[in-house]
Amino acid sequence: MNEHVFDDSCVPIEALRTRAFNMRWAEQAPDVIPLTAADPDFKIAPAIRDALISEVSTGVLSYGPAGGLPRFRESVARYLTTRKGACVEAGNVIAVNSAAAGLAMVAHQRLKSGDEAIVMDPVDFLFAHTVKSAGGVPIRWSVTRRGELDLDQLRALITPRTKMIAICNPHNPLGRCFTREELSSIGRIAVEHDLHLLSDEIWSEIVYAPMKFTSALSLDESIRARTTMVHGFSKSFGLAGLRIGYVTCSSVSEAKAMLERSEHPSTVDGASTLSQIAASAAYDSALDWLDAFLEHLKARRDQVTRTLRAIDGVEVDVPDATYVVFPKVSRPALLESESVEDAVARLREVERVAVVPGSPRWFGEGAKGHLRICFATSEGILTEGLRRVRRGLAHEHPR
Amino acid sequence: MNEHVFDDSCVPIEALRTRAFNMRWAEQAPDVIPLTAADPDFKIAPAIRDALISEVSTGVLSYGPAGGLPRFRESVARYLTTRKGACVEAGNVIAVNSAAAGLAMVAHQRLKSGDEAIVMDPVDFLFAHTVKSAGGVPIRWSVTRRGELDLDQLRALITPRTKMIAICNPHNPLGRCFTREELSSIGRIAVEHDLHLLSDEIWSEIVYAPMKFTSALSLDESIRARTTMVHGFSKSFGLAGLRIGYVTCSSVSEAKAMLERSEHPSTVDGASTLSQIAASAAYDSALDWLDAFLEHLKARRDQVTRTLRAIDGVEVDVPDATYVVFPKVSRPALLESESVEDAVARLREVERVAVVPGSPRWFGEGAKGHLRICFATSEGILTEGLRRVRRGLAHEHPR
Repeated sequence: MNEHVFDDSCVPIEALRTRAFNMRWAEQAPDVIPLTAADPDFKIAPAIRDALISEVSTGVLSYGPAGGLPRFRESVARYLTTRKGACVEAGNVIAVNSAAAGLAMVAHQRLKSGDEAIVMDPVDFLFAHTVKSAGGVPIRWSVTRRGELDLDQLRALITPRTKMIAICNPHNPLGRCFTREELSSIGRIAVEHDLHLLSDEIWSEIVYAPMKFTSALSLDESIRARTTMVHGFSKSFGLAGLRIGYVTCSSVSEAKAMLERSEHPSTVDGASTLSQIAASAAYDSALDWLDAFLEHLKARRDQVTRTLRAIDGVEVDVPDATYVVFPKVSRPALLESESVEDAVARLREVERVAVVPGSPRWFGEGAKGHLRICFATSEGILTEGLRRVRRGLAHEHPR
Repeated sequence: MNEHVFDDSCVPIEALRTRAFNMRWAEQAPDVIPLTAADPDFKIAPAIRDALISEVSTGVLSYGPAGGLPRFRESVARYLTTRKGACVEAGNVIAVNSAAAGLAMVAHQRLKSGDEAIVMDPVDFLFAHTVKSAGGVPIRWSVTRRGELDLDQLRALITPRTKMIAICNPHNPLGRCFTREELSSIGRIAVEHDLHLLSDEIWSEIVYAPMKFTSALSLDESIRARTTMVHGFSKSFGLAGLRIGYVTCSSVSEAKAMLERSEHPSTVDGASTLSQIAASAAYDSALDWLDAFLEHLKARRDQVTRTLRAIDGVEVDVPDATYVVFPKVSRPALLESESVEDAVARLREVERVAVVPGSPRWFGEGAKGHLRICFATSEGILTEGLRRVRRGLAHEHPR
């Protein structure tokens, strides 16, 4: 019996109101419920809290090493080896200032000006953003919530300037978790065309049984040898404020080279040592908390899809992974001539619930006409938030 | 009577051995005393420790805002206004992932490819490094420990491609604190030639009476309007591991523009919120600790200069600021044909004390023939460390 609970009393609402930014509690009017940024409303795991307090109590917050604390890199390697079937050691791992920083590190090192990188459509904006900021050109590969991957389209997108295929697995915002066969197919195409494979696995702990997660680090050696994996601790453990993630390279020498070429040795870039301690504790001591969190989330996933499906003009699939759903909305849920952005504004202003519009700017053209709703909160808050969404989209608001 | 003490028992040596990297305890053989990286051997201020524990106990480590927590930006603005005579508000301040990241942010935004930036010689390597990584060309302006600034040389270095003058005040490694008159002279030259002024003031809390620190943010309006200041919490408060610093722009609109152009809004870059809480507490509640630390350091400064002056072939000035000394060493302190780098290796390998060589690579050509010795430790450790330095440089080692 797991001791961790995730009921309404576990949401520290007053603390969130002054501490949860990025479209969440601290950035909304007091009567608005945010189901926006993918960030949990719950307190961090007690094991992480205790590790932070213990570390702070030593009184030493001195310079860490450029690639990360040995303790952090060892925790990550042990976790990936035992839990994800990866074949890595501490030296393969580089601590970075968030998974976003890891995506940027990989893009900047793998791409030269004008190089093309294939990114999914839709997908989190950071893929196209980091490719562009590295001087590269993002090429969009359409993926859908269900059904076969269009590998012919993927092959057709490859040109002599293509250098990398970047995948998001599990996929934000589609909630799709790719199978070993799907990943192997993508990986073989990378091998055939001598491309780097970038695998963002930040959502890989939030996968609902019977679906099983497959890491790109556990694929065939020929694929693994060209794979760089990026991960972070904001989604699974609620540590977004600590800005801690990692990049895992295919070999120790590759990781050393990537580290040397980065701004870590100069100290311009790097991850807080205290954040690394929290992340170590997450993997070493908070996996039972994570199990309980996942069980709670599965019930919320079912609640949110059930509620949304009952609304005319809303289509939604049950996500296999992540704690976001990505419903497609059209009339009658949308008013005549109303865009999704307008509907989101109406939900916030009239119904007092905030969600994220599937704007091409944030997720690519494939996101048009969708909403993204985060459900990493308590049953009570989600029930009320969904009541407001339904009232707005089913036009039940008293006039 | 200040309650804070800095004696031998306050150096948490076992914690340092696993936590102090960057050429310090965790990276040296167990019998080597490191007087290397500018980083204190003491525990953090109790007020900072308590603030961290209290924040962690809320359980919320959610996304912070791109520019920094309101609490952090307000603490910094209040501190700069009341203690440094600056005229800034919270909106002028951007929280960054270390002062080094701040220098890089300013260089990348102020310089285009081929633009020249004047940096001091010698000076901390980050000045030339960040200018180069932004595509700019660092132009070296010679400064010395004492005597008049060579403003004619400064003027002569300015070309149509010059965009910025970057100063380090107080100066690492010279330990020089520039006067209001000196700073105003540099500032007027920046005004005359329409140049940005970058002022790195990370050492501005470590200034020994009767010397008084002058912030570039307190100069005439015409100078302030083109000044960007960079600061951090690693030197004064021992928070290097937390990677927290800030950039202060001349206006709120300038800060907004700098933030927008940065990778903070994308979340690729940014500072840990927990680190910001520690830094807020430093300014709000740890200034009495800082006073006691400074008093301790003043005694150590006198100890180190007295000891080094007694060695033949060592010339050293008493620094007005910083906790490093920068002695010039020549024969007989150096052996025949021995370089400073050789002497540093000999000190470490034979005498078991580590110091930093004044290599042009790290500090510029003006550092040749010097050592840099950090004295932010206890009297007992410093006494033993200096005994070893003296034994090596005065060739007292038993054969």
